[in-house]
Amino acid sequence: MTDRAVQDTYPEDLSHCYGCGRVNSQGHQLKSHWDGRQAVARFEPEGHHTAIPGFVYGGLLASLIDCHGTGTASAAAYQAEGRPLGSDPPMRFVTASLHVDFLKPTPLGGPLDLRGVVEEQSDRKVVVAITIAAEGTVCVKGQVVAVRMPATMAPRPAARADEQCV
Amino acid sequence: MTDRAVQDTYPEDLSHCYGCGRVNSQGHQLKSHWDGRQAVARFEPEGHHTAIPGFVYGGLLASLIDCHGTGTASAAAYQAEGRPLGSDPPMRFVTASLHVDFLKPTPLGGPLDLRGVVEEQSDRKVVVAITIAAEGTVCVKGQVVAVRMPATMAPRPAARADEQCV
Repeated sequence: MTDRAVQDTYPEDLSHCYGCGRVNSQGHQLKSHWDGRQAVARFEPEGHHTAIPGFVYGGLLASLIDCHGTGTASAAAYQAEGRPLGSDPPMRFVTASLHVDFLKPTPLGGPLDLRGVVEEQSDRKVVVAITIAAEGTVCVKGQVVAVRMPATMAPRPAARADEQCV
Repeated sequence: MTDRAVQDTYPEDLSHCYGCGRVNSQGHQLKSHWDGRQAVARFEPEGHHTAIPGFVYGGLLASLIDCHGTGTASAAAYQAEGRPLGSDPPMRFVTASLHVDFLKPTPLGGPLDLRGVVEEQSDRKVVVAITIAAEGTVCVKGQVVAVRMPATMAPRPAARADEQCV
C-alpha cells in the first residue's frame, strides 16, 4: 500500500479538484491509496451531507466514486508503464462516464470505505469498478470510465495565476 | 411553468438534501421547475467547484443530475395522479441508479441549464433523461432511475429533533 495518496502526487496545477484536490481547501480532499492490485480510500461524510435525514447524499457518493475512479486509473496507468506514481510526464485522468447503483441507503455517521479495481485498461482509457461500504456492508456500486486528460483541458501558464478557486 | 420549485414543495423533514433541500443552508439548493412536460433548473457553480482549473467538477454535475432527476420524477408522479405539487400524501423519490456521460468539459463561470424529461413512468419508478448545457451547448447527459422513497427511509418523529444537518 502506498503511504502517499494518489491524488497527492498530482502536479499542483492539476490539484484543484473539488472532490480530491489537495489545494482545494473547500473540497472533499479524497485520498486514494494503491496497493498494486486495488485502490482503497476512507471518507467520513459531514452531517450536512444528508439525503433523507440519517442517510448519505447520493451526489456525494457519486463524487467519491468519480474521484476514486480517476485516482485508481492514474495509479494503474503508472504501474502499467513501470513508473513511480507522480513521475513526469504526469498521467492525470478525467471521467468520460460514471454509473452508480445505490443498492441500499447509506447510513450517515461514520466512515465509508471505497475499493476500486481495474476492469479494463488501455493507454488512453481505464475502466474502474468501485464499491462503497459502511460498517462492512456494500451500499453502493459504481463504474468509472476514465480517460487521459485531453491537452485542451491543460491549464495554460497565463491562466494559472488568474484562477483562484481555493 | 410552476413558480414554486418542486423541491420547495417537499415536506420540511424531507428537505434536508445536500443537493436540493431548502433547509440545508450548506447545500446546493437546486430548484427544479416543472412545466407539465419537462423540468428545468438553472445553477451557477462557485469558483471552488473546480475539476481541472477552468472546468466544472464532474461530481457536482452528477449531483445536479441526481436532484433534478428526483425532482422531475416527483412532479411527473403528482401530475399522473392529477394532484397539485406537494399535496398530501407526499411523493418523494430517491435515486436507485444514476448514469452520467461527460460529453465535453463544462466551462466554469456562468450558469448551467438543466432539462429533465420523463422516459418511463410507473407508480413506483420514474426514469428521467437529463441534459446540462453551458451557453447553449449540451456538455453533459444523464439518466436517473428514481423510485418512491421506501418507508424504511422515512424520518421517525423521535429522530427528527436529534438530526441537525444544517
